[in-house]
Amino acid sequence: MTDDSASQGAIRGLTVAVLGGTGPQGRGLAYRFAAAGIATVLGSRSADRARAAAAELNELPVNEPSGERRPVTGESNATAARQAQVVIAAVPWDGHADLLGALADDLADRIVVDCVNPIGFDEQGPYPLGAGQDGPAEGSAAQQAASLLPRSRVVAAFHHVSAVLLADPSVRRVDCDVMVLGDDRTATDVVRGLADAVPGMRGVYAGRLRNAHQIEALTGNLIAVNRRYKTHAGIRLTGLPWP
Amino acid sequence: MTDDSASQGAIRGLTVAVLGGTGPQGRGLAYRFAAAGIATVLGSRSADRARAAAAELNELPVNEPSGERRPVTGESNATAARQAQVVIAAVPWDGHADLLGALADDLADRIVVDCVNPIGFDEQGPYPLGAGQDGPAEGSAAQQAASLLPRSRVVAAFHHVSAVLLADPSVRRVDCDVMVLGDDRTATDVVRGLADAVPGMRGVYAGRLRNAHQIEALTGNLIAVNRRYKTHAGIRLTGLPWP
Repeated sequence: MTDDSASQGAIRGLTVAVLGGTGPQGRGLAYRFAAAGIATVLGSRSADRARAAAAELNELPVNEPSGERRPVTGESNATAARQAQVVIAAVPWDGHADLLGALADDLADRIVVDCVNPIGFDEQGPYPLGAGQDGPAEGSAAQQAASLLPRSRVVAAFHHVSAVLLADPSVRRVDCDVMVLGDDRTATDVVRGLADAVPGMRGVYAGRLRNAHQIEALTGNLIAVNRRYKTHAGIRLTGLPWP
Repeated sequence: MTDDSASQGAIRGLTVAVLGGTGPQGRGLAYRFAAAGIATVLGSRSADRARAAAAELNELPVNEPSGERRPVTGESNATAARQAQVVIAAVPWDGHADLLGALADDLADRIVVDCVNPIGFDEQGPYPLGAGQDGPAEGSAAQQAASLLPRSRVVAAFHHVSAVLLADPSVRRVDCDVMVLGDDRTATDVVRGLADAVPGMRGVYAGRLRNAHQIEALTGNLIAVNRRYKTHAGIRLTGLPWP
């Protein structure tokens, strides 16, 4: 059995919630998961806005079928979290702590996937927000989530996937690796499975949560690459024994 | 003209010195550069040891000729630095500041390429060394080098290239991207050109020096990948408009 097929088995029958699901990253991920046949619910502060965003996603064509497409649904963040076993926090860094802290009960017993990048910008371009610059005192957004959500299993993933490519139906395959970090093997396997379900994507275990800072900060380098080369760059790892 | 051919023009006629050239990373880089036809001098604290290491490299076969192979030579670190226009610091993190600080005069007016990864290990595996853990107070090894070498142009690159693959002649192509960081466009172009000269490698500009920390720290994630998947992982970027 390949590493790949192990991860695929782990996601059968799951419901995935995407908090901050009306933002570009959240919408894009929800669109791809639903297209792959995964039950997906968008969460937003306003259930109405979540439903409106879900309806828009359901209008998009799917040009690379990889499962039986499911309709995306929309709910308040709390209801979405309660409906799911895996909850993706695709929220802005500004407000990250407040939003997750308020949902700690709803997120209990869930796998919470943090894909937040605390990045600042000035006249020289992007830079990672350190603890002294309104960045996470815990070292990374993912470690902050783990600290706020002691009853959840926190995983860091999906930091480097271009929101533009995710949401563009003409992009049939989202060719990139998703580095998945966490301290719980079962949880990281599930999240790798989610990545593997999207055509072109591959989930790769890439370390413990304490190594999340540089994965989040690397987004700043990819933004620099995008600016220099006018592209939407992603990451691939070479040398892996599969697929 | 592609980005690639621009960088190739920048390295014609250069001499490259590799400080710490008797370590695995330095030896591997020197072997590949010399195989690509670049004049390459190993530096070490002991000129004799540098010459012995150079002689060993010159005995290795070249299985993927990409230029007219040159013999690697060996010198003391200071002499090697003075002979070169581009100096690669492939030294251990422990001793990095002392070594570079002592060579500040020899490195003046050179492009200094820092490829040092301040990584620690404990029973949970690798982690980046922060400022409070014997890591660089400047934020990264590359920024420390820039601080110690005000008369040099410091570039960060070659962090993620496997020393094992570099030094193995049966590995004909070292398939990976080299993320090149720096604040001087000419200097980063030269270093991209060095990467491009090695079959399989591609040099990609990936931000200013203040974004070097996460590139160095990412080595910890690649070590985690290597341990999980029993491999020598490298980085590729997707979405680039060349080659």
